[in-house]
Amino acid sequence: MAITYRKAGVDIDAGDELVERIKPLARATRIAEVLEDVGGFAGMCRLPSGLEDPVLVSGTDGVGTKLKVAFLTGVHDTIGFDLVGMCVNDVITTGARPLFFLDYFATGKLDVAVGEAVVRGIANACKEVGCALLGGETAELPGMYAAGEYDLAGFAVGVVSRKKIVDGARVAAGDVVLGLRSSGLHSNGYSLARHVLLEKMHLAPSDRPDGGGGSTVAEVLLHPTRLYARHVAALTADASIDLRAMGHITGGGLPGNLPRVLPEGLGVELQGSWTRPPVFDWIARGGPVEEHEMRRTFNLGIGFVVIVPPDHVARAVDALRPLAEEPIVLGRVVPVDRATPFEERVIWQGD
Amino acid sequence: MAITYRKAGVDIDAGDELVERIKPLARATRIAEVLEDVGGFAGMCRLPSGLEDPVLVSGTDGVGTKLKVAFLTGVHDTIGFDLVGMCVNDVITTGARPLFFLDYFATGKLDVAVGEAVVRGIANACKEVGCALLGGETAELPGMYAAGEYDLAGFAVGVVSRKKIVDGARVAAGDVVLGLRSSGLHSNGYSLARHVLLEKMHLAPSDRPDGGGGSTVAEVLLHPTRLYARHVAALTADASIDLRAMGHITGGGLPGNLPRVLPEGLGVELQGSWTRPPVFDWIARGGPVEEHEMRRTFNLGIGFVVIVPPDHVARAVDALRPLAEEPIVLGRVVPVDRATPFEERVIWQGD
Repeated sequence: MAITYRKAGVDIDAGDELVERIKPLARATRIAEVLEDVGGFAGMCRLPSGLEDPVLVSGTDGVGTKLKVAFLTGVHDTIGFDLVGMCVNDVITTGARPLFFLDYFATGKLDVAVGEAVVRGIANACKEVGCALLGGETAELPGMYAAGEYDLAGFAVGVVSRKKIVDGARVAAGDVVLGLRSSGLHSNGYSLARHVLLEKMHLAPSDRPDGGGGSTVAEVLLHPTRLYARHVAALTADASIDLRAMGHITGGGLPGNLPRVLPEGLGVELQGSWTRPPVFDWIARGGPVEEHEMRRTFNLGIGFVVIVPPDHVARAVDALRPLAEEPIVLGRVVPVDRATPFEERVIWQGD
Repeated sequence: MAITYRKAGVDIDAGDELVERIKPLARATRIAEVLEDVGGFAGMCRLPSGLEDPVLVSGTDGVGTKLKVAFLTGVHDTIGFDLVGMCVNDVITTGARPLFFLDYFATGKLDVAVGEAVVRGIANACKEVGCALLGGETAELPGMYAAGEYDLAGFAVGVVSRKKIVDGARVAAGDVVLGLRSSGLHSNGYSLARHVLLEKMHLAPSDRPDGGGGSTVAEVLLHPTRLYARHVAALTADASIDLRAMGHITGGGLPGNLPRVLPEGLGVELQGSWTRPPVFDWIARGGPVEEHEMRRTFNLGIGFVVIVPPDHVARAVDALRPLAEEPIVLGRVVPVDRATPFEERVIWQGD
């Protein structure tokens, strides 16, 4: 009997059905710059008007093994939100405005409902940050993924006028580091978090640990990554604020990310304190995971940082107030020896 | 004993080592528009000068289960070349010039040498098409991939002046469809190809089937995807050529891809014939796979198509001559009933 592509494990019709279901989701994210229905092979987007010497800013990321929590719980409509957060929160650290997003969704056997839920999460986040879901790829790879599993990759492009790039170059000793709260784990450290909470502590997704405000483990682990695009837009909109650096706190935590935007010979002394979301205490106690390891793995409650000179702190705080955001004063930029290892450029009070 | 991120399966040091090995590879792809060492969270790229109303064109893709051939043979330094081909060949169908590329590489346990080989293939292709490898993500996802396996996704961005977009809108009955040869399977239909050649015919990677010019099965299956960026650049450089549409022939073959750039009510009657790379005959006979299924699964030897008016064929052929490319006259654009199903808008002579 003759063999077909479908018999070899690839269902073109399911792929086509998913494309049809995605269309209205993508359409709802459309921004004025998108050229519609032009060309059949690629997405097209103009540049926003009024940019002087526009610079494209791009980043790609995945969501790590937070995916495994989606598989475990069967909740697939927020993991795409995380995907956009991971990519767009990187792009906006430069002061860029997000412009468009593309996703790659790969699975062993396509489940159209799951694929649609994932893309719905992506589209929801795209709407919130004002960027267009311009395209995507659904790949059916028989034998590559376990039943019910998939991987996700995202790709974001933003744009900024060259003169307005925020790059950390002007950061100076004495500058103030402000922190914006995270919503929890965001999308980092899940291999460790799952290992401790699910395997070591034997918590079930439906358990409601003490101090978790009544939330289930599943809810806490799936809590969507916070998006900081509106915060960055509010800060860049006030030209009187000398925005010197911004950082997205992901894998590696504050010590792994803050130094990425500091000039050589500068570090940050963390002086402030903040309330950590309870999930970090569960992990630290349940492992146990030592404080040093917690710091270099998780965001510990701070998802995004902003560095400004001391006399601009009040303006930054004012700019964020309409968003009901109360930034935390984390500490100050300080001189450090140039030979200081990367992660040790973040100095924790009391260490 | 305290638990660490590494014990939970994520080796940050291996990731850091891979980043160091990738740096020189990415640096070698740099184009003038890339802003170096600006910002630590995202890649930055200016626009080429001289573009009027620039439009960004972007696409994402993977390489399907061609990956499995890389795993089987242990040859990892060309699959990245395919990744760039899949993405960039889509983007250039609009007439865009490729600008930058980002990759997502996900695996269960990071093998630095494999990761480096994959990125070397990506960088080699980026150099050939003149686009910068601007960034990437290496994701270690314990428990998500089988030992020695990984997935790959790519994202390409190109740019074109709005007035010079090639979108198929002006294609008219009588226009001529030119085909550029593929190098073999490119990166599509591998689930079927592997099933027939490796499982049904029990060919070994080291076998040299008759009619294969002495090539091994592994060589044929891993043959890199052809890149058409220089061809498109040669065609768009000659403003006297009325370039009406271009198409990248991927999964779905000619019937699944050509209609994507045809206005409603038009189809293509294929009149020419061309020599198919022998791998397609191996698959057709070894399956057996019926001709109809072959056509809607594989490129069958044509990787890219170009549509021009009849009196522009000679100019297009002349423009491609410096690249030693001899396009094949595949057929003509013809009127079809508007109700004709998508794939049936490609009409094969003799059917």
